[in-house]
Amino acid sequence: MSAVVALVPAAGRGVRLGESLPKAFVPVGGTPMVALAVAGLVASGVVDRVVVVVPEGLPQDIIDAALTSSLGALPPVPVQVVVGGAQRTDSVRAGITATPDATHYLVHDAARALTPPALIGRVVGALYAGNDAVVPALAVVDTIKSVDAAGVVTGTPDRAGLRAIQTPQGFTADVLRRAYAAEGAATDDAGLVERIGVPVHTVAGDPLAFKITTPLDLRLAESLVAQVVR
Amino acid sequence: MSAVVALVPAAGRGVRLGESLPKAFVPVGGTPMVALAVAGLVASGVVDRVVVVVPEGLPQDIIDAALTSSLGALPPVPVQVVVGGAQRTDSVRAGITATPDATHYLVHDAARALTPPALIGRVVGALYAGNDAVVPALAVVDTIKSVDAAGVVTGTPDRAGLRAIQTPQGFTADVLRRAYAAEGAATDDAGLVERIGVPVHTVAGDPLAFKITTPLDLRLAESLVAQVVR
Repeated sequence: MSAVVALVPAAGRGVRLGESLPKAFVPVGGTPMVALAVAGLVASGVVDRVVVVVPEGLPQDIIDAALTSSLGALPPVPVQVVVGGAQRTDSVRAGITATPDATHYLVHDAARALTPPALIGRVVGALYAGNDAVVPALAVVDTIKSVDAAGVVTGTPDRAGLRAIQTPQGFTADVLRRAYAAEGAATDDAGLVERIGVPVHTVAGDPLAFKITTPLDLRLAESLVAQVVR
Repeated sequence: MSAVVALVPAAGRGVRLGESLPKAFVPVGGTPMVALAVAGLVASGVVDRVVVVVPEGLPQDIIDAALTSSLGALPPVPVQVVVGGAQRTDSVRAGITATPDATHYLVHDAARALTPPALIGRVVGALYAGNDAVVPALAVVDTIKSVDAAGVVTGTPDRAGLRAIQTPQGFTADVLRRAYAAEGAATDDAGLVERIGVPVHTVAGDPLAFKITTPLDLRLAESLVAQVVR
C-alpha cells in the first residue's frame, strides 16, 4: 500500500519579509502561510499524511493555531509535527526520519502558500506513472544571466532551455532517502537527487505557486487569498 | 552634450495576457502600461527624450490617449512615436535609426510599467560612471534548472551566480548601434552587446520592476498602481 507523505519544512527565518515570526508562520489574509500550504496539500486528495517541521522552541500555541486554522472543512488527513534543524536540509532529514512507512514523498515550501491542489495532483500523478523524481516547472520570464563576484555578466544561457522550479517536489521514498544519505548541498531537493544520478522529470507549474519572499509577494498573496477556493 | 534617449518597444502582441490590444496598451488601473512606463522614465529626471515604438496600423487615437494619460503633471520631456516591426529587435532598430543624436540609450520594456524612477537613475548613473552597458539585476528566487526537449532536467546551475535581469538596460549609443549592426539574436539587448565582447555591468534591480506577463501579474499591478507615487 502506498503512503504519500508531504514534508513541509517550516523552521526557517524569513528575514526578507521583515517579520519577527518564523517565515512560515507569517499570516496571509489572517492565516499563517504554513496553514495555507497544508490546506492545499490536504485539498489535493492525493496526500496521505502531512509532516510540518517546526523550529525548536516555537511556542505550542502558535503551532496549534496555525495547524487548526483553515483545516476545518477539509477531509481528515493526519498532520504530524516534527522539530527541525538550523538548515532546510536538516528539517527535511528530520521529516524523513520520522516517517519510515512513506512510499512517496512530497517536499513543499510553506512559502508557496497558494499552490493550487491541481498542481500537487500533477506531481503525484507523474510519480504514480513511474517517475522517481518530479518537479513543477515554469518558463522563465526574465532573462537570466550569470555574473561574477564583481557583478559583471559572464554569460546568458538560452532562456528557452531554462525553467523556474517550484514545489511540491515529488520523489519515491527510496530515492529521497538515498539523496539525503549522500553528502551534498543544493538549493532544492531535486538537486540532491540529480547528484545521485536519478533523472528528474518536470510537470507544468502554476504562477499561483509563487514563493512569498518579498513584501511585494506578500501583498499579492493578500489580494489573492480571500478568493482562492480550496 | 549628452542626450539620453529611452526606447520603449511597444509593438508586441501580448497573447499571455489574453487581451486583444497590443500588450503595451493594456490598461493597468485605467492607464495603459506604456503610459506608466513612459511616466516612470520621465519622472526619473535622467532621460532627455522618450521614443515609443508602436505597431503598424494601431489607430492614432489609441496612441494619443496612451501618451497623454498620466503625463500631465510631469516635467516636459519630448515623446516621439516611431512605427516598429514584427520582432522586438526590429522595433529597437527602428528607434535607433530615428535617433542619430543619442549619446546614450535606455531600452525599456513597456510591460515593466511600475519600474521605480530610482532604478532608472541607477542605470544612467552607472553609464555616466564610465560603463558601456548596464543592466538592473535581482537575485533569483526559484531554483533554475536546464531541461531537455522532453522536459527532463539536465542541470542545476548554482543559483548564487545567477541573476534575473530587468530593464531599462542602458548603453552608450556607439555600443548599442554596433550590437545591432552585428547579426545575432538574444532575449535581451545586453545579450547582443555581450556578443560583440563588451562587458555588461549590473546595478541593483527592484521587485517593482517586474514584467507584467500573466493575469496574476496584472492583478498585482492593479493593486499597486493606485498607490505608486511618481
